Amino acid sequence: MNRQRKIISVIGSGQATPEESRLAEEVGRELAKQQAILVCGGLGGVMEAACRGAKAEGGLTIGILPGDNRETANPNVQIPIITGIGYARNASVAKTGEAVIAIGGSYGTLSEIAFALQSGIPVIGLGTWSLYRNNQRDMSIVQVGTASEAVGEAIRLAKT
Amino acid sequence: MNRQRKIISVIGSGQATPEESRLAEEVGRELAKQQAILVCGGLGGVMEAACRGAKAEGGLTIGILPGDNRETANPNVQIPIITGIGYARNASVAKTGEAVIAIGGSYGTLSEIAFALQSGIPVIGLGTWSLYRNNQRDMSIVQVGTASEAVGEAIRLAKT
Amino acid sequence: MNRQRKIISVIGSGQATPEESRLAEEVGRELAKQQAILVCGGLGGVMEAACRGAKAEGGLTIGILPGDNRETANPNVQIPIITGIGYARNASVAKTGEAVIAIGGSYGTLSEIAFALQSGIPVIGLGTWSLYRNNQRDMSIVQVGTASEAVGEAIRLAKT
Amino acid sequence: MNRQRKIISVIGSGQATPEESRLAEEVGRELAKQQAILVCGGLGGVMEAACRGAKAEGGLTIGILPGDNRETANPNVQIPIITGIGYARNASVAKTGEAVIAIGGSYGTLSEIAFALQSGIPVIGLGTWSLYRNNQRDMSIVQVGTASEAVGEAIRLAKT
Repeated sequence: MNRQRKIISVIGSGQATPEESRLAEEVGRELAKQQAILVCGGLGGVMEAACRGAKAEGGLTIGILPGDNRETANPNVQIPIITGIGYARNASVAKTGEAVIAIGGSYGTLSEIAFALQSGIPVIGLGTWSLYRNNQRDMSIVQVGTASEAVGEAIRLAKT
Repeated sequence: MNRQRKIISVIGSGQATPEESRLAEEVGRELAKQQAILVCGGLGGVMEAACRGAKAEGGLTIGILPGDNRETANPNVQIPIITGIGYARNASVAKTGEAVIAIGGSYGTLSEIAFALQSGIPVIGLGTWSLYRNNQRDMSIVQVGTASEAVGEAIRLAKT
Repeated sequence: MNRQRKIISVIGSGQATPEESRLAEEVGRELAKQQAILVCGGLGGVMEAACRGAKAEGGLTIGILPGDNRETANPNVQIPIITGIGYARNASVAKTGEAVIAIGGSYGTLSEIAFALQSGIPVIGLGTWSLYRNNQRDMSIVQVGTASEAVGEAIRLAKT
Repeated sequence: MNRQRKIISVIGSGQATPEESRLAEEVGRELAKQQAILVCGGLGGVMEAACRGAKAEGGLTIGILPGDNRETANPNVQIPIITGIGYARNASVAKTGEAVIAIGGSYGTLSEIAFALQSGIPVIGLGTWSLYRNNQRDMSIVQVGTASEAVGEAIRLAKT
C-alpha cells in the first residue's frame, strides 16, 4: 500500500434514516472503487453503512472510536482506533481525512464539519448542515445531491 | 466559595473586532456582577476581553488552554487549565459551562456551539452562527442583541 | 485573587486506603493554609480526601473530570472542569499543576506522573511509584514521608 | 483484510539509540511476517525504525500523530491518524494495540505503558522501564531480551 491512496472521512449520525443509509453505503462503495481509504467514527448509522459499502467493494475501513472498547466498532470496521476521548475524537475523525463527506447528521457531525473547515479540509455535504455567520451565508460546505458527486468532489478537492 | 455560583462559558474568536471586544467585556462585567464564574478558552480576542471585564468587577476567570504552556493565557485568566490537547479542548470549554455565550466567532467557536448543543447546554448567541439542518432552521441557539440580555438568558437557562 | 497563588495537583487512586485518605486530607489542609489552589481529577479516594482537607481550611478546589457529567465530581470540588476525554484528561491534571503531589496510586496515577515529568513539572511522592529505566533508578520523583514535607517541597519546587 | 489480523502497538523514544533502532526495525519485520498490523505514534526514532521494518516485509503501518499535520508522519507510516491532541494521544497509541511492545523510551513511553496496563493490555518490554509501587516490584511488564521474543509474546498475549 502506498500513500498515494486518498484518505476520506465520512461523517453523519449514528442513527441514520433509510435514505441516509442508502447514500452512505453508496458513498462507501464509490470510495472503495476509487481506491480511497475510508475513515469514520466507527459506530452505527451512517458510519456503519459507509463501511459496509466500502467493504463490499474490497475497500479499507478505519473507525476512530470514542470509547475504550474495540467491540463498539461496527462489524465493517477493519482497523479500530481506540481513543477513549469521547466526542473530542470528532476532531480526529475530521482531521484525518484529506476531505470529509457529511451525510445528514446532528450536532456531533456539526462539530466535525467545524473542525474540518478550521483545518482547511474540504467538506462535501449531502443533506447536511448549512451555515450562516452573523446572517451571512458561509459557502464553505460544497453541497451536492448524489453519492457519486460527493465522492467525485471529495477526491478532486482532497488536501494533499 | 460554594457550588451555587453559576459557571458560564464565553466563546468567540481569538481575533475580535472592536465591537466584539466591547460586547465581550460587557458580558464579563455582567457575569461577575451576577457572581458567575467565567470559563473560556484562555487566549486573546473575545476570551481576553471577557476576562478583563470579569476581573474588573472582581469576578473569577478560568482559561482552558489548548497548549502546554500557562504563559499563553491572557493576563486576565486567574486559573489556567493546561490541557495540551489543542482544539479538542473546545469540547471542554463548551461542556464546563452550565450555559454558553457565543460572541461572533469562526469555526472553532462553531465546534464549541456544536458540543454544547450536543450536551443539552443552552447556547446564547450575540452576532454569531446560525444553523440550518437539511434546509430547516435549527432554533437551538438563543439569539440576543445585547450583552445584558445574553447574561440574563445564560443565568436563567443555565443547566444545573 | 491573583496569579501569585500556586496551583498544585494532587493525584492518587480513586479507591484510597485509610492511610492514603489521611495523608491526602492533610495535604489538602496544608495546601489551603499556604494559599495554594488544589487541582485534582475530581473523583473519589485520594482526590476527595484532598479536596475535603482543602475545603475545611477555606481553600479553592478544582476537579478536572474524565466524564461529561458534573455530578460525578466529589462534593468538595468547587469548580468542576468537564473534559469528556476520559483518562486522557490525566495529562491535563498533571500539567495544570505547577507541582504534583502523588499519594499511593495505580496505573492512572503513573500516567500522570509520567506526563508531569515529561513537562518538567516537579513530582513529590508519598508512598507512590518509583521508577527504573533500563535497570537504572530514575530519581526524578522527590520521595518524602509526610504530608507537610510533601506540601513544603511542592511549594518550594513549583514551576513558575 | 479481516479482523483476525492482530494489531500491535510499538512504543519508544522519538530519539532512539542505534541499538534501539535495530531492535525496533527487527520488531517491525517480525510483526509484518506474523501478519500483524503495526500501530505507533507516527514520529521518528523507535517509531520510524519499527515502521521501516514492517514496510520492508510488506506490513501495514499506522501512525497516531500528536499534531495537526500529516507531514509530520515518518515516511514509513502508511495510514496517518491526525489527532491534534498532543501527548494525550499516547492513550490512543497504547489502547489501540491488542498488545504493546515498549523499546527503551522516556516519560512519554512511560505514560503509554501506564495507559496500556490500566486497560489490561499486555506490555512487553525491551530495555524499557521497570516499576515499583510503594517499594514492591510490579511485575506487569513482560521483560524480554530479543525482538523475536517480544513479538512472540505480543502475539501470544494479545487481548482479543
